[in-house]
Amino acid sequence: MILLSAKPVVQKRRAELLAKTDAIKKRLGRAPHLSVILIGDDPASQVYVDRKANAAMKVGFTSETIRFPKDISANAVLKRVRELNSEKKVDGILIQRPLPPQLREKDVSLWVDPAKDVDCLHPENIGLLVTGNPRFMPCTPGGILLLLDHYGITIEGKTVCVIGRSAIVGKPLASLLLSRNASLIQVHRSTPDAASLCKLGDLVFVAAGSKGLLKRNWLKPGSVVVDVGIHRDGAGKITGDVDTESIADLPMALTPVPGGVGPMTIQVLLENTFTAASRQG
Amino acid sequence: MILLSAKPVVQKRRAELLAKTDAIKKRLGRAPHLSVILIGDDPASQVYVDRKANAAMKVGFTSETIRFPKDISANAVLKRVRELNSEKKVDGILIQRPLPPQLREKDVSLWVDPAKDVDCLHPENIGLLVTGNPRFMPCTPGGILLLLDHYGITIEGKTVCVIGRSAIVGKPLASLLLSRNASLIQVHRSTPDAASLCKLGDLVFVAAGSKGLLKRNWLKPGSVVVDVGIHRDGAGKITGDVDTESIADLPMALTPVPGGVGPMTIQVLLENTFTAASRQG
Repeated sequence: MILLSAKPVVQKRRAELLAKTDAIKKRLGRAPHLSVILIGDDPASQVYVDRKANAAMKVGFTSETIRFPKDISANAVLKRVRELNSEKKVDGILIQRPLPPQLREKDVSLWVDPAKDVDCLHPENIGLLVTGNPRFMPCTPGGILLLLDHYGITIEGKTVCVIGRSAIVGKPLASLLLSRNASLIQVHRSTPDAASLCKLGDLVFVAAGSKGLLKRNWLKPGSVVVDVGIHRDGAGKITGDVDTESIADLPMALTPVPGGVGPMTIQVLLENTFTAASRQG
Repeated sequence: MILLSAKPVVQKRRAELLAKTDAIKKRLGRAPHLSVILIGDDPASQVYVDRKANAAMKVGFTSETIRFPKDISANAVLKRVRELNSEKKVDGILIQRPLPPQLREKDVSLWVDPAKDVDCLHPENIGLLVTGNPRFMPCTPGGILLLLDHYGITIEGKTVCVIGRSAIVGKPLASLLLSRNASLIQVHRSTPDAASLCKLGDLVFVAAGSKGLLKRNWLKPGSVVVDVGIHRDGAGKITGDVDTESIADLPMALTPVPGGVGPMTIQVLLENTFTAASRQG
């Protein structure tokens, strides 16, 4: 089995981005700036937000993390987002998910100015992606494509299987794969026999949020598997949606968890923030 | 072969809409109003615009058709659209496609206020649909679902094949079918062997814009085929994307062209306009 690690891709692209950041700093008179809003004290969310801030620093951006208690009112968060929307030196705004229950996803997704929505969650940005005029890349799907491109894996003309249909991963990923001339099979928890459909895929993308779902009988030999899942067990061990033991001796390529899709997602967030900054002034 | 004609569906839904219109007229003090912009003198576009205006009249709406010459500037059209956006008694605005070359789809799709975009072409409305919070139904995909529902055809748990990946039909239709718990196969002109993938579909939706593309070897017996194509030959005869002769003796159900998807599309336009009006005042 070949492991498609994010590490060399991120190293290469970070170095490129750092150089581009140096150039844009001269033009803007400041570094690209990312504002992150973190609500509550979910440990995983804290880890993700720290990683994003660290990655931003490494490519020469400035960033800030704005923290709110988990019982903050929707209006108080909205007020702060509006200030950030109108603040010229803020290029990108990200509201870390998951949200506490008093903040509804369908409302919050409309708050960030689409031009600063570097997480690509605003419906207008999803729509622009689907209609073929993306303003930003959706972070996880975009990161997956960068990873496959780095390893020279062809998408064009292939049959791809996407497992999952979320608004954040499954649907935008399917849209990007179609625009790269892949033929699409998309299955989910209501698919009666997902394994047999999935087995038709030359490339398989599993974003089901179901630990160890994808087993050997879902795959044909020689396939490429992208694992978007992330699960922590009691001992802190991180695994994905693929049952790696069952496929250990299958000739194929796989993105590892951790160290595969996750770091790529952060890389796209940074590249989107750079894009937003480069559209300023 | 069973023909799934739009006629009884449209008759029933039009009568229901007429009754609802009577009720909303009392509340609003006016009828729901649809403004249609027609640019140039394309005969097919004129026919479609006339049909929409007639259908609006039959359900008790008022409508207007605003005509521009084919060489009108983008700015002049935009100015008029902005006036309609701010005109309180205009509920729905539709800019008839195709557009002349000086008007670019990616610009024009952002002009109509999303709250009045009853054609459901604004990226924000496409994004809301994809993220599971539709503001309006996309006209053609929404009409297809109404047609299938009327005839008691189940989507849930079925394998569906969508042929085509346009922003107007293929992609939003795929999104709606997934949200109805279908498993999806989506193929297009870059699919090496579309017929064999398509043959897995219990329901097949052909929106390829390719006359007579779908032949008997693309289908399994007992399938349901929805034909979104519309082609006029020199003699004025209208046919779809299905080669109906080749499938004449196959046990299956098919939407006719004309008289299938087309009238359903107009019905959804009217229902969207009613929805927009009902959100006023």
